[in-house]
Amino acid sequence: MRRIGIGLIGSGFMGRSHTLAFRAAPAVLAPAAVPVLEMLADIDEPSAAQAAQSLGYSRATADWQALVRDPAVHLVDITTPNALHKPMALAAIAAGKHVYCEKPLAASAADATEMARAAQQAGVQTFVGLNYLKNPLLAAARAMIEGGEIGTVVSFRGIHAEDYMADPLQPWTWRLDPAGGHGAVADLGSHILSIARHLAGDIVEVSGQIATVVAERPVARGSTAMRAVAVDDQARALLRFASGATGSIEASWVATGRKMTIGFEVTGTKGTIAFDQERMNELQVFTAGQPRGREGFRTILTGPDHPPYGQFCPAPGHHLGYNDLKTIEVAAILDALAGGPRFAPDFAEAARIQACVDAIVTSARERRWVSV
Amino acid sequence: MRRIGIGLIGSGFMGRSHTLAFRAAPAVLAPAAVPVLEMLADIDEPSAAQAAQSLGYSRATADWQALVRDPAVHLVDITTPNALHKPMALAAIAAGKHVYCEKPLAASAADATEMARAAQQAGVQTFVGLNYLKNPLLAAARAMIEGGEIGTVVSFRGIHAEDYMADPLQPWTWRLDPAGGHGAVADLGSHILSIARHLAGDIVEVSGQIATVVAERPVARGSTAMRAVAVDDQARALLRFASGATGSIEASWVATGRKMTIGFEVTGTKGTIAFDQERMNELQVFTAGQPRGREGFRTILTGPDHPPYGQFCPAPGHHLGYNDLKTIEVAAILDALAGGPRFAPDFAEAARIQACVDAIVTSARERRWVSV
Amino acid sequence: MRRIGIGLIGSGFMGRSHTLAFRAAPAVLAPAAVPVLEMLADIDEPSAAQAAQSLGYSRATADWQALVRDPAVHLVDITTPNALHKPMALAAIAAGKHVYCEKPLAASAADATEMARAAQQAGVQTFVGLNYLKNPLLAAARAMIEGGEIGTVVSFRGIHAEDYMADPLQPWTWRLDPAGGHGAVADLGSHILSIARHLAGDIVEVSGQIATVVAERPVARGSTAMRAVAVDDQARALLRFASGATGSIEASWVATGRKMTIGFEVTGTKGTIAFDQERMNELQVFTAGQPRGREGFRTILTGPDHPPYGQFCPAPGHHLGYNDLKTIEVAAILDALAGGPRFAPDFAEAARIQACVDAIVTSARERRWVSV
Amino acid sequence: MRRIGIGLIGSGFMGRSHTLAFRAAPAVLAPAAVPVLEMLADIDEPSAAQAAQSLGYSRATADWQALVRDPAVHLVDITTPNALHKPMALAAIAAGKHVYCEKPLAASAADATEMARAAQQAGVQTFVGLNYLKNPLLAAARAMIEGGEIGTVVSFRGIHAEDYMADPLQPWTWRLDPAGGHGAVADLGSHILSIARHLAGDIVEVSGQIATVVAERPVARGSTAMRAVAVDDQARALLRFASGATGSIEASWVATGRKMTIGFEVTGTKGTIAFDQERMNELQVFTAGQPRGREGFRTILTGPDHPPYGQFCPAPGHHLGYNDLKTIEVAAILDALAGGPRFAPDFAEAARIQACVDAIVTSARERRWVSV
Repeated sequence: MRRIGIGLIGSGFMGRSHTLAFRAAPAVLAPAAVPVLEMLADIDEPSAAQAAQSLGYSRATADWQALVRDPAVHLVDITTPNALHKPMALAAIAAGKHVYCEKPLAASAADATEMARAAQQAGVQTFVGLNYLKNPLLAAARAMIEGGEIGTVVSFRGIHAEDYMADPLQPWTWRLDPAGGHGAVADLGSHILSIARHLAGDIVEVSGQIATVVAERPVARGSTAMRAVAVDDQARALLRFASGATGSIEASWVATGRKMTIGFEVTGTKGTIAFDQERMNELQVFTAGQPRGREGFRTILTGPDHPPYGQFCPAPGHHLGYNDLKTIEVAAILDALAGGPRFAPDFAEAARIQACVDAIVTSARERRWVSV
Repeated sequence: MRRIGIGLIGSGFMGRSHTLAFRAAPAVLAPAAVPVLEMLADIDEPSAAQAAQSLGYSRATADWQALVRDPAVHLVDITTPNALHKPMALAAIAAGKHVYCEKPLAASAADATEMARAAQQAGVQTFVGLNYLKNPLLAAARAMIEGGEIGTVVSFRGIHAEDYMADPLQPWTWRLDPAGGHGAVADLGSHILSIARHLAGDIVEVSGQIATVVAERPVARGSTAMRAVAVDDQARALLRFASGATGSIEASWVATGRKMTIGFEVTGTKGTIAFDQERMNELQVFTAGQPRGREGFRTILTGPDHPPYGQFCPAPGHHLGYNDLKTIEVAAILDALAGGPRFAPDFAEAARIQACVDAIVTSARERRWVSV
Repeated sequence: MRRIGIGLIGSGFMGRSHTLAFRAAPAVLAPAAVPVLEMLADIDEPSAAQAAQSLGYSRATADWQALVRDPAVHLVDITTPNALHKPMALAAIAAGKHVYCEKPLAASAADATEMARAAQQAGVQTFVGLNYLKNPLLAAARAMIEGGEIGTVVSFRGIHAEDYMADPLQPWTWRLDPAGGHGAVADLGSHILSIARHLAGDIVEVSGQIATVVAERPVARGSTAMRAVAVDDQARALLRFASGATGSIEASWVATGRKMTIGFEVTGTKGTIAFDQERMNELQVFTAGQPRGREGFRTILTGPDHPPYGQFCPAPGHHLGYNDLKTIEVAAILDALAGGPRFAPDFAEAARIQACVDAIVTSARERRWVSV
Repeated sequence: MRRIGIGLIGSGFMGRSHTLAFRAAPAVLAPAAVPVLEMLADIDEPSAAQAAQSLGYSRATADWQALVRDPAVHLVDITTPNALHKPMALAAIAAGKHVYCEKPLAASAADATEMARAAQQAGVQTFVGLNYLKNPLLAAARAMIEGGEIGTVVSFRGIHAEDYMADPLQPWTWRLDPAGGHGAVADLGSHILSIARHLAGDIVEVSGQIATVVAERPVARGSTAMRAVAVDDQARALLRFASGATGSIEASWVATGRKMTIGFEVTGTKGTIAFDQERMNELQVFTAGQPRGREGFRTILTGPDHPPYGQFCPAPGHHLGYNDLKTIEVAAILDALAGGPRFAPDFAEAARIQACVDAIVTSARERRWVSV
């Protein structure tokens, strides 16, 4: 079986999450290629060495460019702060490597598009970590929509709300660095926009609104030195889809009390599908035409009829977790690298999502509808 | 005790609902005035006579102007199609009568403002049937906000979604008559905008989007003759509040499967309050600063600590119903008429709500942010 | 239309609740007879006079026996502490009056049976206030079961849990008086047993368990004088039904945090129905044979297809409240008194329920299965 | 680091589940010992070879006794049908091996006790797969109870309901083999009894009820040959705890529509904790003494404050899944084998649970309360 050498850059939340998935995927999902944890790059040698040891990579380096060039690395996996995605991905592509990158892909749609084009020209495959799309219930939702089970989609409402920046004393972080792009609209908005596109298709026009709720933050936890915040804490947009459907999205990292709301409601002429990531194993579905007095939303629990759930557990209702979504993502990457089905979302799709993000910000700043 | 002669115009859903409330209020809530069901006006004599008999009014008439002039009628209660609100209310005001009118108050903010001014000049009291505001949990939510329990409000999201027009074969109705104003944005939007204003204050600017999902409808049930629909089936808007908070509202009467969603989430810097009318006896409240590992949204059930619940039932958790909200509304009207606390929302408030509705429609049509 | 003179004995929570229902029922449900609030009896003249005035009864008395004998009183409505139900009901029956009595009907099944027999021999109608049975969704549940929508019932689980006695400083009350019968098993257990019988039929055998959690209570709020508690605070029982189905019930008034749980789950060979009074407008229904990957419990909201909801409100999802259940109960009583459909549950049914209560207590005390 | 050679017997649902956990645990939870997938035994050579290859074991055998004796196997992991647990475990213990066995541990409490004693005498460690105990929220619940956050426990209600045997055409399976012990009361009841003991302590007396709902089943899917069912499909019991608290449990594998209900409600004098495995990342907690009008059950989402969640994911609300519970279980086993904290539940605890199961069945058959 084909072996894929993994070169991971960055070993924080997402670096660890990817690694757990690379380790879990072969046993759970038996993808057509085997990942080999070849090399890990981090900010300096000690950090890299310690992370490599802890996560199980064979080699460590403080020089990500060395990692990118290393012949044993076939897939460069980028989990660094956003501002670094572009140079790293372009270098990897230039070295002929496939690239797996966390979201948001780039600081701007222009950058993302440049990255997508470079990958296309180099003939390498690209993969973006919009893992919530990998929930088997999202596939079920899409199948229902494509199969006409809810008629024609007329409305989409999406919300991604967390509260990890709600506390004004939460210190400044790289997520607030404008060099990395926009704020919540990019960090969280990219997720909900990816779902909007997945279920309701192309977005052609937006009217956006962004707000910075906490104007300045301590430079470090407990510090009295403050640093101004230049990106949005919350964002909203009205959407027009190519299909003629309309909708809205909202993204906030100051949504006090919300830990992991990724909620959507897709309304069709004959039914409605609703979901919330805080109950990620439940899909709420209404279909018109039920017997009178008996109609209602059904609560569908994930089960073996929602592949690849059955490979995690043969019995329904036992629940997938967050890490399982990453495992599904990684297995799909390995399959694609072994010549299997094309992976989505790739850089080209991420660039289209980023174009929506940029359009929302432009719209908000220029106070007008903006085409995507 | 003061007796208030009620003159009801219209005897449909709302006419009946008001009447049930007038009959229930004295026993349940002991308002400071007694309603007397004096006269009912409807489209023709037989209809009026039959409705008066069924609902318990002493007299019936096909001439609403006679009702308005009748000396025994002190409060003119208007539950007719929207297009008729203005002439009826103005006539009642001209006759020196207090007026209770269903929402949306008028076809436009200009009309509503004219009505409010006329009432003010005539020195009569006015009352608008935005009954969801009367839920004791809404009062609790407002008290929490005013008491600082959730910090400073930074975001408001409101949704009013029903599906009574979702079926394309649902026939054309007076609700679709542009002479009565706009569509879902007025009929349902007025409710959710009233809540937005109640909890988050003045709205100063909107960016709206409206859509007519079902372009034409049968002129009557089962008919093949079709009539074009000129008003919106669904509407959304981004909002900017005077306080600096931002938000959104959505209104739809084609939200397949949703029967009575009036959902909102008010996010503050130190807490969040969420509600859905489909579970109208529950308020979800999160407050920051709970012990680690123990924090979460609380589900508060309506009870005697949420007045006037205790007058309906002394034990918590027993549930109020929709009609109870109307009973609370009517009792507050009777109290106001007896010199008690000023009632809200009155025509002036309804005109401000209608100004938001109009601004959303203008914004949608002109594709720009519009000040309210 | 026939006029029914109402004579109410007792004017507490339930006396008021009945009265509100008598006042609301004619307008909402147009029963075939008109209630006339004729006379109210309470503990002394001033109390009775004040209550009569407040609730709208024409006359007041401190002599309930005078009320019972009064020729203008056709229906004697008993809402006094349990220990008084029997003498009052027997006196009313002896006077040839119809009787409406709150639950639990009597201190023992023997007493209840004696009351039922007396009524039968006297040819008067009897009515027991097990109002939760009047929820239109309970009728829907029963119709589903009778129509075979969930196959053959194999299991019933019922819970009635409140916490109004959870605080050990909650003072001693007449509900704890053994002269009135048992504790939570009677007060709350009668409700859940009535539902068990309504949905799953006759109970033929029980194994019970009772517990007094708070052994003594203050004689009055704030008092340091204590009085021993001789009745149960919580009770449970295993059940065997005549149909062969098995099940359990539980009743507690010390269920900290639970305000109005009346939850049940009826499992059949082809489906399951679940309900909780804390969400009294929702029924959860699962039926076997749904398409694969699409199956789940449906949340049915009360609506016009669940009579008599439509007479409260023509639009679905608007919610009935607790008082509406009493209104439905009272209208059914008035209909029965006017020669309409026989009312259930009557004294005979309440005696069968009380027999279950007694059997549970006997079983618990004698530590053996007891036939009902 | 110490290496633990794993010898797995059986490669079905649980064999695979254990293996996924052994593979995941080192990376996620860094236990103090490393598992080595040494050998797998199954019913015949080809099955064993194929499973070993698929799951990643170095060697395969059709002779489980060879596995037990193999010097490279340090931990014998038994995931076979129940009837085989005892001989396999005793052989492993005799060979001086530590044993990890699925629930229910044995066909009877006598067998389980014999196994526990053998292990104790041999000085080997034992581990039982009651994985739902490993949910971090169960640890939180127990900490709350031990810390007095809900006062003194007065009631426990537990339900384990699934529907995998609800269809009468579901064929006969080893789970129905009386040689393996009882039915749902053992298979599912062991889970809910383990939780009852975990949260409310020793159970000293039970009154049980068991029922076989489907009297006979096809010998294989689609077959017309039928085989009688000799074990229970559903069971219930009233419980008395050593603490004086009372309660009940219920177990059913014919609970149509329920996929993975493991629900409990622990009521204390000052609070209540409720949980349902179908929403395994949520704990419902009520505590007395909240401000008036603000009190309610809190919905606590699993997060980093509930160890070891943070090792799966640093952000709250992202959700653990079923397989993660097994990973936690396996890591705790590895830690215990490396000299870390003693693992619970071991064979001795499982024997106590099995004693409850047996007591329920005896009680049901002999129709009397039975001491445990």
